[in-house]
Amino acid sequence: MVRFFAARSDISGGTIKLSAEDAAHIRSLRLSPSEFFVVCDGEGMDYVCRLSGAGERAVAEIVETRPSSGEPTVKCSVYIALMKGDRLDYAVQKSVELGAHEIVLFPSERCISLPGDMSKKTARLQRISLETAKQCGRGRVPGVTAGDTFETAVGKAARADVPLFFYECEENLHLKQALCDAERRNAECRMQNAESEPERRTPLSTLHSPPSFSLMTGPEGGFEPHEAELARSAGMLSVTLGSRIMRCETAPVAALAAIMFQTENF
Amino acid sequence: MVRFFAARSDISGGTIKLSAEDAAHIRSLRLSPSEFFVVCDGEGMDYVCRLSGAGERAVAEIVETRPSSGEPTVKCSVYIALMKGDRLDYAVQKSVELGAHEIVLFPSERCISLPGDMSKKTARLQRISLETAKQCGRGRVPGVTAGDTFETAVGKAARADVPLFFYECEENLHLKQALCDAERRNAECRMQNAESEPERRTPLSTLHSPPSFSLMTGPEGGFEPHEAELARSAGMLSVTLGSRIMRCETAPVAALAAIMFQTENF
Repeated sequence: MVRFFAARSDISGGTIKLSAEDAAHIRSLRLSPSEFFVVCDGEGMDYVCRLSGAGERAVAEIVETRPSSGEPTVKCSVYIALMKGDRLDYAVQKSVELGAHEIVLFPSERCISLPGDMSKKTARLQRISLETAKQCGRGRVPGVTAGDTFETAVGKAARADVPLFFYECEENLHLKQALCDAERRNAECRMQNAESEPERRTPLSTLHSPPSFSLMTGPEGGFEPHEAELARSAGMLSVTLGSRIMRCETAPVAALAAIMFQTENF
Repeated sequence: MVRFFAARSDISGGTIKLSAEDAAHIRSLRLSPSEFFVVCDGEGMDYVCRLSGAGERAVAEIVETRPSSGEPTVKCSVYIALMKGDRLDYAVQKSVELGAHEIVLFPSERCISLPGDMSKKTARLQRISLETAKQCGRGRVPGVTAGDTFETAVGKAARADVPLFFYECEENLHLKQALCDAERRNAECRMQNAESEPERRTPLSTLHSPPSFSLMTGPEGGFEPHEAELARSAGMLSVTLGSRIMRCETAPVAALAAIMFQTENF
């Protein structure tokens, strides 16, 4: 069923107020009275609807309410180094399809082009996120934001339960090992949940549900060694994606797919 | 180091005969005498070289020979339903980056456009495969071919050790379960390798190294139920990629990333 998003405040009394754009789109589909569409509130609920009224007064009449099924059980924040427009479009679109919770763009030393007006870029990518979320059946629209500096992006990414920094010069820690270690650590913590464990990297307070992951991938040409050092010292795990050199728009997609697979969200 | 491919027959006596195109490319890089490039024979060996001679007589002088490191330990054949040009380009490029062994295109009932001249299309995609293999450090160039019919593609795909048919209406078998089942079955078979086991789906003879996987993904709009039935009756495992609806160019990439992750090739 074709899918739209509406604000919770537009949903009341068995009907949903549609935007003029969405109402026009629905009419263009020429749905028969027995055909329905879905409006999602972006907070985990889907409303199966039919169109009633016309013109400015068009509303979606709710015929069924049910939880959205397209949200993964983990929160993956995807941190993507700034790159050329079409590559960024692609990385955002695929991240949304694969279940990213949010996308954060950040500058990095080897980034080729740093746009002057980031708000214009993020607005365009937010639009891609919305269109992709509709198409692939997400229960919310992942936010697209931009960090001012590499340092602030690392600072935010490092707060995830499993903060992963994909570094092309890393040789020791593979993604699978990092995820298995994290699962083991969390399982141990759950078993000992009455005791405090100050020596562990992942504090018990973060072992809420859903667990959070951050994935940070570099620009064309990769990260500078001092950037990797900064990420490590902030507490991120420096991880390799194997011996092949992935393009900068491929690495976040591959890493996100692996995490969704491992956490049984495929 | 920048990377090229050459036929084994062009390698002899400590030098490699370069194509005019590659020699021109190397010269355009203006490498210093202490800078090297790699020529791969496409069969698992890398030759670290420097350029000697000029013009038509330019050759690569071998200074070091070593095994290629970019090949995964599993053979994944990616079967992609025909789709629009740019999406196909993307799916082929990403499949090569992620370690596909080969790419097979096939027609399916819901394919929108079936090109008249497939040889032109496969030649163009083979070129994308070559360029991507150079860029990401592969030890061979994955072949791109086209099956004439859906039936012949299924017949070929079904012969893999783990033949996976990604079907959007499948609800029961998740990829992780399918891969874990295959690993368990293979482990059991290895333990009993002196006995014949005619009742098992995976014959012992196929438990060679590397194990082979086939991944078959559908066109925009997905597979027809009778196509899924045909794949199942040919012995393929009907598998879901989860509750989100991936675009036709995203599904093969996500599935391949998951297999590379699970088989420790990331």
